[in-house]
Amino acid sequence: MTTIHIRNLEIVTLDDAGTILHDADLVVQDGRIAYVGEAPPDLRADEVVDGSGRVAMPGFVNAHCHSPMTFERGWAEDLPFDRWLNEKIWVAESALTPDDVYWGAALAACEMIRSGTVAFNDHYFYMDRVAEVVRESGLKAVLTWCVFGIGPEAEVGPGLEDTVEWIKETHGTADGRIRTFLGPHSPYICPPDFLSRIVELAHELGQGIHLHLSEDSEQVTQSLERHGMRPVQFVDSLGLFDVPGGVVAAHGLALNEPDRDILAEKGVHVAHCPITYMKLAMVFPPLRPRLAAGVRVCLGTDGPGSNNDMDMFAVMRQTALNEKYLMLDPEALPGDTPLRMATQNGARALGFEGMGALVPGAPADLILVNLDAPHMRPIHSLIANLVFAAKGGDVTDVMVDGRWLMRNRELQTLDEARILYEAERHAQAMVRRGMRQMREYRG
Amino acid sequence: MTTIHIRNLEIVTLDDAGTILHDADLVVQDGRIAYVGEAPPDLRADEVVDGSGRVAMPGFVNAHCHSPMTFERGWAEDLPFDRWLNEKIWVAESALTPDDVYWGAALAACEMIRSGTVAFNDHYFYMDRVAEVVRESGLKAVLTWCVFGIGPEAEVGPGLEDTVEWIKETHGTADGRIRTFLGPHSPYICPPDFLSRIVELAHELGQGIHLHLSEDSEQVTQSLERHGMRPVQFVDSLGLFDVPGGVVAAHGLALNEPDRDILAEKGVHVAHCPITYMKLAMVFPPLRPRLAAGVRVCLGTDGPGSNNDMDMFAVMRQTALNEKYLMLDPEALPGDTPLRMATQNGARALGFEGMGALVPGAPADLILVNLDAPHMRPIHSLIANLVFAAKGGDVTDVMVDGRWLMRNRELQTLDEARILYEAERHAQAMVRRGMRQMREYRG
Repeated sequence: MTTIHIRNLEIVTLDDAGTILHDADLVVQDGRIAYVGEAPPDLRADEVVDGSGRVAMPGFVNAHCHSPMTFERGWAEDLPFDRWLNEKIWVAESALTPDDVYWGAALAACEMIRSGTVAFNDHYFYMDRVAEVVRESGLKAVLTWCVFGIGPEAEVGPGLEDTVEWIKETHGTADGRIRTFLGPHSPYICPPDFLSRIVELAHELGQGIHLHLSEDSEQVTQSLERHGMRPVQFVDSLGLFDVPGGVVAAHGLALNEPDRDILAEKGVHVAHCPITYMKLAMVFPPLRPRLAAGVRVCLGTDGPGSNNDMDMFAVMRQTALNEKYLMLDPEALPGDTPLRMATQNGARALGFEGMGALVPGAPADLILVNLDAPHMRPIHSLIANLVFAAKGGDVTDVMVDGRWLMRNRELQTLDEARILYEAERHAQAMVRRGMRQMREYRG
Repeated sequence: MTTIHIRNLEIVTLDDAGTILHDADLVVQDGRIAYVGEAPPDLRADEVVDGSGRVAMPGFVNAHCHSPMTFERGWAEDLPFDRWLNEKIWVAESALTPDDVYWGAALAACEMIRSGTVAFNDHYFYMDRVAEVVRESGLKAVLTWCVFGIGPEAEVGPGLEDTVEWIKETHGTADGRIRTFLGPHSPYICPPDFLSRIVELAHELGQGIHLHLSEDSEQVTQSLERHGMRPVQFVDSLGLFDVPGGVVAAHGLALNEPDRDILAEKGVHVAHCPITYMKLAMVFPPLRPRLAAGVRVCLGTDGPGSNNDMDMFAVMRQTALNEKYLMLDPEALPGDTPLRMATQNGARALGFEGMGALVPGAPADLILVNLDAPHMRPIHSLIANLVFAAKGGDVTDVMVDGRWLMRNRELQTLDEARILYEAERHAQAMVRRGMRQMREYRG
């Protein structure tokens, strides 16, 4: 049995009572938290770590992202959504190779670990290559292989039936660190029969679903015209919310009251990605109506083509600031609410049991954040300093299942220098290929 | 003559043409930039620095803050403005001592240097103690001793006439690094005669003015009732905008078209502090109408009691995101516009000539930002990476007037460990004294 004893810590447990401990011990045994508060006097640890000047908290869970898209960071700037997508994002992605996906996701893994994320919910293509990165990095992830259902010509990589084989081989591997979801892109792209087939498969495989849902009023109008129902009602009518592994719906920006009631009743997790909405100038509502209706809200970065980074501190702070501003209520999302949304709400969405609170028995998925930095002092409120002053770069140490992924800002599992080099090289080559193809195609 | 030669740099010059240089030299001689691009082959430097993997850009200028208020970081959270001010901020500040100001400002100086700020525009009390910090830190600042003009009982520290003596002794000292402004709090607190006296003094002393102006519709209503004019028109009628040293007006959130025209015509610099507005749930408009009218807009953090940090990267990113969102236009504030607002626009507001562009002859007030970090790769757009992905913690080196204030993340001029200790101790003691006084007063 491996025992790690971290001493002299401030601890934001995010347990049900919101307990905060000072000058406390945190003991990890065999990948799980064994003691929080005071270690037994006779404890014999394999590793003793001085946590002075650091606060421990549950690691972040990025509930919706497209991690390989780091390769498009800064590639499509200051453009309206259609030009962003058609002239830049899709042009580059038309030249996508599985290797690009690997190096893009590896770059994202470095970035996520450095900024305190322990688990992510990824929606993209060639997810077998992202699975490699998850295995190597030590992170946890739910991987969703995005499928459109509009024919082999339009699919990126294999179609639905091939991803089924991949799901069977992949779900639950890497000691349970890798989980999978079925991944229809969205009801505005995928045909109804295809969505129904996915619901069937989800029941057969015991899987959940991760999709984009009701992102704007145009999608609502289109759905009403095609199906006589709003997107939420439509996919609900297909039984999509009743699948065994749960549903993560990205964005859900255009919801009315019946939509919210359906999402709440069915326990759908809505992943909110405010930085993308602001950057791409999308209309987004305050969270209060959906929270009041009982909808489960978690937070994500979305892809680095729109955010442009994967720092969950930034997403958490933006969520809190937006809510106060949009509601014109400085008391909106008070206290540790944003921290919980960015950690345990995401963990529940991803189905990682026990993740998101530092309590005995929970998996040791945690981060240490530096308090010996001028912007983190004085400490009138640890919570406020974490929500409104901390940045990804303040994370010093990251642990997943009791294994250090970062110690004192040094990555432990990934060859960062090589990843920076290869990710840069692949990203530049990919956009060059895409632009060349587009020019040739246009003649 | 001291010569510093930085090689192999990416350089975002922010010159008029927006020139960006790759693998370039930057040479500093006697505190000023001598060469940008290629150094003369026969250059003999006292110090040669390898800038590989770093981008040089002008340092940030924080155009409105209350730096000593770091001592109230996290002290007043999730409260409406009146309770924030009356129950928390003023309670703590009622116990303020000059030493608290010194240590609070010293903590802010550490934070500002670490996040790439080279100059700040400070509005607070006991500014003689902030001047000590500016002298010691090597930063540049415009210091404004805030006065209310409502009698000795209500003033914090000395009254107006004493600050005049201090201005005479202080303006232009520390080799010109310290400048001063006259500091009426605002037209909604200061009596009209008092404001007129300040305008007179500004002419006598050749000084500018830094005040809070037209922050919300309530202030507009109050001004119309008292003076028959909106705040901007009212202070203009007193000649306040015609003082020799220029005017920085903080916030200016409630402006109509004639207000904007007056501010534009008089060359008033409006300091925009969006994170405070969101945190305290204040109504704020997009910037486009004022920019279109020709108003000069610069950026600030405001005080850490409301922000909660002094990271100008965060303010810059928030400004760009807000503008795209509020205008529902992803093309709003494109390209390097946010960078210019956060650097050279502030430099002009503060009257530091030549600051804000890396061109020959300009003062060497610059920062180096790390590019060898996963969130800063790939480099499709240096500008987008700086505006939307970089954080204060990515700044590795800071130079002011050719002097290093930080090298490889190590502060060069300040004793950071002692400052963290003393700032924490003084902040905790101050809020305890304030709370005790309040309890005694209330009996």
